[in-house]
Amino acid sequence: MASGMKRPIHEIEIVGFETYDLRFPTSLDASGSDAMNPAGDYSAAHVRLKTNITDLIGHGISFTIGRGNGLCTAAARMVAERLVGKTLGELTANMGKTWRYLVSDSQLRWVGPEKGVMHLGLSACVNALWDLWGRYLNKPVWKLVSDMTPGEFVACIDFRYIRDAITPEEAVTLLKEQEPTKKERIRIAEMNQAVPAYTTQAGWLGFSDERMIELIQENLATGMDKFKLKVGGNIEDDKRRLKIAREVIGYERMLMVDANQVWGVQEAIDAMKQLAEYKPTFVLTSLEDFR
Amino acid sequence: MASGMKRPIHEIEIVGFETYDLRFPTSLDASGSDAMNPAGDYSAAHVRLKTNITDLIGHGISFTIGRGNGLCTAAARMVAERLVGKTLGELTANMGKTWRYLVSDSQLRWVGPEKGVMHLGLSACVNALWDLWGRYLNKPVWKLVSDMTPGEFVACIDFRYIRDAITPEEAVTLLKEQEPTKKERIRIAEMNQAVPAYTTQAGWLGFSDERMIELIQENLATGMDKFKLKVGGNIEDDKRRLKIAREVIGYERMLMVDANQVWGVQEAIDAMKQLAEYKPTFVLTSLEDFR
Repeated sequence: MASGMKRPIHEIEIVGFETYDLRFPTSLDASGSDAMNPAGDYSAAHVRLKTNITDLIGHGISFTIGRGNGLCTAAARMVAERLVGKTLGELTANMGKTWRYLVSDSQLRWVGPEKGVMHLGLSACVNALWDLWGRYLNKPVWKLVSDMTPGEFVACIDFRYIRDAITPEEAVTLLKEQEPTKKERIRIAEMNQAVPAYTTQAGWLGFSDERMIELIQENLATGMDKFKLKVGGNIEDDKRRLKIAREVIGYERMLMVDANQVWGVQEAIDAMKQLAEYKPTFVLTSLEDFR
Repeated sequence: MASGMKRPIHEIEIVGFETYDLRFPTSLDASGSDAMNPAGDYSAAHVRLKTNITDLIGHGISFTIGRGNGLCTAAARMVAERLVGKTLGELTANMGKTWRYLVSDSQLRWVGPEKGVMHLGLSACVNALWDLWGRYLNKPVWKLVSDMTPGEFVACIDFRYIRDAITPEEAVTLLKEQEPTKKERIRIAEMNQAVPAYTTQAGWLGFSDERMIELIQENLATGMDKFKLKVGGNIEDDKRRLKIAREVIGYERMLMVDANQVWGVQEAIDAMKQLAEYKPTFVLTSLEDFR
C-alpha cells in the first residue's frame, strides 16, 4: 500500500476486478512436457481485485496448461463478481466463512465447487484476496499467516466436510502444542530455509538427453541439489534418462520421478521395479488428478 | 435415420456440431429448490453432432442448474471439435478407446477431465455420440447396449484407473455369468418395468405444504408410489413435511430424503435420528459432490 494515512480495513472496498487469460507458448520447446501432457502451454487465469484505493490491488492466479485456461478465467470472473461491493474488513474477518460464501453460489456450485474449472477460478480469486490482505498489511502472505493466533488461523478454514476427521477445537489444540517452536521456525523461514525445493526444469519428457544434462549442470552450479524427472513414456527411455541423471548428480543428491497419472496401479509397480536401481526418493503417479 | 439406402457406418462422418445453452427459469416457482440450491434454473448444455446425412444428428445434454451452464457449454464445444472429421464407425468401434481419446486432450484434461465443468461438457458430447449411434442403428440406446456381447460391452469402458479393482477379463466373466437371465431381463425392460422410479416433483424445499400435498396427490393418481423430499433446511420444517407426506402416502409406499450435501457427518446422524420415525428408505447426503 502506498505511504500516507492508512485507512481502516473496513473502509477498503473491492470496487471491481479485471481478469487476464495469460498463456505462454511453452509447447514450442517442450518445456513442461510429461507423459500425459506432451504439449502444454503454461498458462494462468489472473485476477486483479481493485479497491477504492487506486494503487491497492490484489493479484491472484491459478495455473493451467493451455486451452482450458479460458474456462478457468471465465469461472474466475463469475466468482470475482461476488466480491465486488464488499470490504476487505468483512471478507477477512473470517476467511473460512468467506470461503463458504464463495462456494455457496449454488448455480456455480453445481459445476464445482471444489474441483476442476470452478475450483481453479475460485482459487485465483481467493489467492487475490489473500494477496490484497497482505498488501494492505504490508506483509507477505506467509508472514500474515504465521502472525495469526491458532484461533485466527483455524478460522480461515471451512470445516463443513472435515469436522468428522478434525474439529476446529482439535486443530487449535494441535497448533498450540507447536507454539514453543514457532519463533524458531519463523526465523528459519526468514533465512529462506523453511521449505526444501526441487526443480523439474531439466526433467521434461520432451527434452533431449543433451538438454537435460546441460540444465542439470546449470542447476548444480546454482546450488540446487534436488531434481525431478518426468517418466512414464517409454520405460527404456526412462531408464536411460535416470541413469544419465544419476551420472551427473551422483547418489547423494535427491532424485524424484513423476509419471503424471499415465500408469494404472500394476503398471506403476512394474515400472518402478525397473527404475528402483536409480533410487528415486519418491514417484508421483496419482491415479486420478486431485484438483 | 431416414428411410432409403443405408450407408455403411464407416461412411457416416461427423461434419460439425452446434451447442445450445438451454435454461429454464425454475427458480421463479422454487421448482428444484433444495437445502444447498435454493434458486436453481434447471439448464442443459445441449450438443448436436451433425453428420454428412442431413437428418442424422446426435443429441446429447448434460444437466446443470443455471449460470454454470455457460461454462459447460463452452467446454462441450472444445470437446465436440475433436469429433469433427471422424466417422461414426471409427468412434464406435471401441467406445472405451474413444473415451480415452476424448479425455486425452491434455490442455483440457488439466482442468478436468472427469470432474466438474470439463466432465459435464464431455458427457454432453459422449451422450450425443451414443445417441447418434442409436439413431443410425434405429434403436434406443438401452437396446443398443443390451444387444452387445459381453466383450463388446466391456470394450466401451476405459479401464486405466480401475484395472486394479476389476480387469476387462473379469468384467466379461461377470457378464457371461448373467447371460442365462438376460433374455428375461430384456423382456421386463420392454414392459417398462426394469427400473423402479421415484419422483421429487412434490418435494422441493421451497414449496408450501399445500403445494406439496397437491402434487403428491396428483402423483398418486398416476400410480406413482415412490417419493423423495428435500430436507436439510430447518429440522422442524423437515419433520413437519415428512409427517404430512406420510399422512398422504401412508407407510406402505416408499419415501426418501435428500439433504444435498449441506450436512457434515455428525449433523447427518443427528438429523436422521430426528427423522427416523418417518421411516425414510434412504437419505442422500453425499458429503462431497461426486461429479
